[in-house]
Amino acid sequence: MAKKAVCIMSGGMDSTLAAYMLRAQGYEIVAVHFNYDQRTQQKELESFRAITARLGTGQTYEIDLDFFAAIGASALTDRSIDVPTGGIEAGVPVTYVPFRNGIFLSIAAAIAEKEGASVIGIGVVEEDSSGYPDCREAYIEAMQRAVNLGTRDETQLTIAMPLVHLKKEQIVAEALAYDVPLELTWSCYSDEAAACGVCDSCRLRLKGFELAGIPDPIPYRVKNGVS
Amino acid sequence: MAKKAVCIMSGGMDSTLAAYMLRAQGYEIVAVHFNYDQRTQQKELESFRAITARLGTGQTYEIDLDFFAAIGASALTDRSIDVPTGGIEAGVPVTYVPFRNGIFLSIAAAIAEKEGASVIGIGVVEEDSSGYPDCREAYIEAMQRAVNLGTRDETQLTIAMPLVHLKKEQIVAEALAYDVPLELTWSCYSDEAAACGVCDSCRLRLKGFELAGIPDPIPYRVKNGVS
Repeated sequence: MAKKAVCIMSGGMDSTLAAYMLRAQGYEIVAVHFNYDQRTQQKELESFRAITARLGTGQTYEIDLDFFAAIGASALTDRSIDVPTGGIEAGVPVTYVPFRNGIFLSIAAAIAEKEGASVIGIGVVEEDSSGYPDCREAYIEAMQRAVNLGTRDETQLTIAMPLVHLKKEQIVAEALAYDVPLELTWSCYSDEAAACGVCDSCRLRLKGFELAGIPDPIPYRVKNGVS
Repeated sequence: MAKKAVCIMSGGMDSTLAAYMLRAQGYEIVAVHFNYDQRTQQKELESFRAITARLGTGQTYEIDLDFFAAIGASALTDRSIDVPTGGIEAGVPVTYVPFRNGIFLSIAAAIAEKEGASVIGIGVVEEDSSGYPDCREAYIEAMQRAVNLGTRDETQLTIAMPLVHLKKEQIVAEALAYDVPLELTWSCYSDEAAACGVCDSCRLRLKGFELAGIPDPIPYRVKNGVS
């Protein structure tokens, strides 16, 4: 029986690369996607489906988490809070969704226990990214410990975060090396037809492509917002 | 502003007592209930609503987690797996729902961060209970650490588990001391009109009342299954 990795895949560049890296290590990928009433939910779901069809996966899970709208407190899940477009600032941005990765990892852990997986894959980036507390290595390590204490003794899970110390230009370069279909990935926080080019996620992505010296294959409304 | 405790409340005896204890410590209770397609979902929800109306709470959250049915792997969420009725056995029982408390605590942490709460309350019982790995003190402590590393630096949460070392008869006695409306609580895993009396949860509850020397006010189909 193939060893399995449950990969949390948003449809974005980072989590897609993480899944490709784990597949290259011989894991069967159990792909998990979350719809949490985020602004670009439909586009992210389409990206997830296109990417997993290309990647080739075992079981896939598309999980609806409607309650994020009731919690709100983030520009991604509360339409009354604007997504910032003026450039990346210090501190935790208003796009932070409270403990989103904690919720995602907990559900992934339940799926991993059910599937008999040994790895959970997540595309968190700490050093050159969003400023979200739930993307920090120390958090993921603590979460791994909690997951292993809170599941059956025979369930022993490693949370793989192969991108955590990469810069965005390294992620672009690695994505090319792993033949990741970058044209299928979506990172924009706010738009679904063409990426806005000015939200934090677009800025980080565009900066990565620019520094890697490679054109980004997805459409943008504007591309001059690179921070 | 009142200090707040986000309490995970199933409608059962243990989590109800935990919430009453925290309210007695001066916390405003933010009550969170999960519908996860468990067998007694409707009865538990009714119990939650009746209990919180009696307790008096701030904001309440009723959260639907439909995906538990897709994960299954438990007698509580997969109708093709029977709830055991023959008495409590060693090991993790088939009623264990993979990492359920991890998922519940992660969502409670997001709510706590949004609400500005300082405490999450959970009614886990380790020593005289279900054999579920996600009810162990060591797990809850590890989860508290993870939650604090994975949320904003100003979010500092304590996960209170005031029942973790209590025996069931102590829980019954404490519930009386705190004036918990035991008649409104529901513990049975399988039935909603009258408690079955023979599932693990009924057995533990009935044992607690028997040892405490107090009659259980809820209706039972049979009461002779005490282990």
